[in-house]
Amino acid sequence: MVHIVSAFDEELVQIQARISEMGGLSEELLARALESMQSRDAALARSVIERDKILDAMEIAVEESVVKLIAQRQPVASDLRVLIAAMKIASTLERIGDLAKNVAKRAIPLSSARPIKPTASIVRMGRQTLAQLSDVLNAHAARDVDLAIQIWNQDVELDEMYNAIFREVVTYMVEDSRLIGAGAQLMFIAKNLERIGDHSTHIAEMVYYITTGKSLGDDRPKGEPAGIEFVRE
Amino acid sequence: MVHIVSAFDEELVQIQARISEMGGLSEELLARALESMQSRDAALARSVIERDKILDAMEIAVEESVVKLIAQRQPVASDLRVLIAAMKIASTLERIGDLAKNVAKRAIPLSSARPIKPTASIVRMGRQTLAQLSDVLNAHAARDVDLAIQIWNQDVELDEMYNAIFREVVTYMVEDSRLIGAGAQLMFIAKNLERIGDHSTHIAEMVYYITTGKSLGDDRPKGEPAGIEFVRE
Repeated sequence: MVHIVSAFDEELVQIQARISEMGGLSEELLARALESMQSRDAALARSVIERDKILDAMEIAVEESVVKLIAQRQPVASDLRVLIAAMKIASTLERIGDLAKNVAKRAIPLSSARPIKPTASIVRMGRQTLAQLSDVLNAHAARDVDLAIQIWNQDVELDEMYNAIFREVVTYMVEDSRLIGAGAQLMFIAKNLERIGDHSTHIAEMVYYITTGKSLGDDRPKGEPAGIEFVRE
Repeated sequence: MVHIVSAFDEELVQIQARISEMGGLSEELLARALESMQSRDAALARSVIERDKILDAMEIAVEESVVKLIAQRQPVASDLRVLIAAMKIASTLERIGDLAKNVAKRAIPLSSARPIKPTASIVRMGRQTLAQLSDVLNAHAARDVDLAIQIWNQDVELDEMYNAIFREVVTYMVEDSRLIGAGAQLMFIAKNLERIGDHSTHIAEMVYYITTGKSLGDDRPKGEPAGIEFVRE
């Protein structure tokens, strides 16, 4: 039996390869942004900001390839959906890069500010965010539906870490008002990480969709948002 | 001379009409979220959270229509780009709805917390955000390139309002540590508004692209991020 690979399939494989490359770069940006925060390294943070531009250009290239492939091959609806999902994954990876860049931007003033203890918790949360991103990129590369579902269900852990950090940072801010500026930056960094986690689940949804043709639904378990009740009077 | 309207054009007009509808709903959600914050109305905030689901469903419908239209009509590359831009505008409006929903979510605990003065500044910023969103939707409906460029250039004002609010909120938090929890919520609300402003500029870029076939470039003026220097020791 001859295995037939169409020109369409070949070009689709190329698009998937570009997405894998984008995934690798988004992981690198997040890892370096976390490292720049942990080691108070403003130069490293600046390099993340600079390198994010590559990811932006790669997203545009994927979109161009998808449009070109649709125009040339006029694929049937099911292939079209796979292509549009590929474009969305590229766009999601670009946004993950933006969020990593934003972590790096905030790491710059923090590098010369008074050290604040919850930084360690945020770096831990960052490592979990990075592990989740790495898992979802593996799920994408291997079309691993089970892994995609697992990631989709596990994101609630990141939501809970975020809520714990929010409370921890507020506690430090209450104890020492000189930490309020830095604390606010840490809150935004933690929020960025939580959003990267959300984006990883979006990629998991698209991996599920590409592989099965079905939607994962929208009843993903979510952590409760950190409230202000604990300081309410 | 007979004006010829193709089946493709007619269906494109329908997609644009759905996008206008999504735009109207996103404006409504933002206006009500701001109102719920200003009048400390938790029930109104909850209705925003509920109504955002309609916007999510509308985005999926636009995407379905675009995929169907591409599959049926097999448009040339330039028409394809217009369709993909329409899909992206729908996705951006869905994200604006998410951000308005997040403002409403944060307005719920704030409605029963000790009132905090910077709320007034945030409501003012919110009105400007809403005016910008409304302008960009008009630019989209009228294919008004000049208005799109104007919005694109003006977003820097929202960035500056955001920075001023950030400093104002920190000042209140420093003066009265009981306000730290509510202050953190206000910072996230202001950040959400600033992001809605960014999304309006993305729509302006797509209006420019759909109308002229060219990109607006990526050197949009941006406000400097609020730093922590003013509390640094």
